[in-house]
Amino acid sequence: MKMIIAIVQDQDTNRLIKSLTDHKFRVTKLATSGGFLKSGNTTIMIGTDEVRVQKALQIIKDSSQSREQLVAPVSPMGGNADSYVPYPVEVEVGGATVFVLPVDEFHQF
Amino acid sequence: MKMIIAIVQDQDTNRLIKSLTDHKFRVTKLATSGGFLKSGNTTIMIGTDEVRVQKALQIIKDSSQSREQLVAPVSPMGGNADSYVPYPVEVEVGGATVFVLPVDEFHQF
Amino acid sequence: MKMIIAIVQDQDTNRLIKSLTDHKFRVTKLATSGGFLKSGNTTIMIGTDEVRVQKALQIIKDSSQSREQLVAPVSPMGGNADSYVPYPVEVEVGGATVFVLPVDEFHQF
Ligand code: NI
Ligand code: NI
Ligand code: NI
Repeated sequence: MKMIIAIVQDQDTNRLIKSLTDHKFRVTKLATSGGFLKSGNTTIMIGTDEVRVQKALQIIKDSSQSREQLVAPVSPMGGNADSYVPYPVEVEVGGATVFVLPVDEFHQF
Repeated sequence: MKMIIAIVQDQDTNRLIKSLTDHKFRVTKLATSGGFLKSGNTTIMIGTDEVRVQKALQIIKDSSQSREQLVAPVSPMGGNADSYVPYPVEVEVGGATVFVLPVDEFHQF
Repeated sequence: MKMIIAIVQDQDTNRLIKSLTDHKFRVTKLATSGGFLKSGNTTIMIGTDEVRVQKALQIIKDSSQSREQLVAPVSPMGGNADSYVPYPVEVEVGGATVFVLPVDEFHQF
């Protein structure tokens, strides 16, 4: 048994949890914030047999991997027109930080 | 030292925490949701000496074990009378998923 | 790689997280309550290389260590004047409970 702790962006959380549960992983979502990635993170815990750890990691990678996204420009409020960029820009979104922890005992009551 | 992580149903949480603290266990409650059990779960962390792990597990089992409960029927809203069952039914409630994790160092400052 | 889990008082959390991030530690804050210390606790997770564990522990100790604080007396509401103390009193604040957990695998996607 292993416990996987993954910190992912809020926007990736629902898709990730759906994909994990579709593949019969059991997931618990912890409310979290800040730090490991940019703001708006969620921490999820997955308890799984050792033989399925690599599959879980693959799903996390597929659902949350850091990637570029085109973002439409927001027109500036007030006098900040100097830094205004009038076309979509690529920003990096997503990303996951993942720990696999050893488990001494696992019980279901 | 071990860290016990238990995911239990919200309805069992207060009784469980009271029983653990009555037995001098130190408990931290994490806000959680979904996944390991049906909706409405709470995750609790317990830090304890190795010799008391089995006692903690026994308390978790006694407070949260899966069991049947009689539920009074809810009368159907709208036209779903076909599936209406006019007598109490047994439903399964409770249940706990528990991980015991090894701890390398423990400090109190 | 190690995972440090620290339970600290709410009032110490912001200063602690600032100090940890100033020192390039990556911190995730989990919403928590009660138990290990008096009410109003926060649990934080820190993932770090083994060689920096002692530095993280030092920062946690410096930011959250249990200490005495002078508190101005609150004048009693209603008839409880017998127990009213008309000068500042020392109360114990702060304190941290810290676990260092082994990590089998660490990934960033
Ligand atoms: Ni698949
Ligand atoms: Ni007892
Ligand atoms: Ni410094």
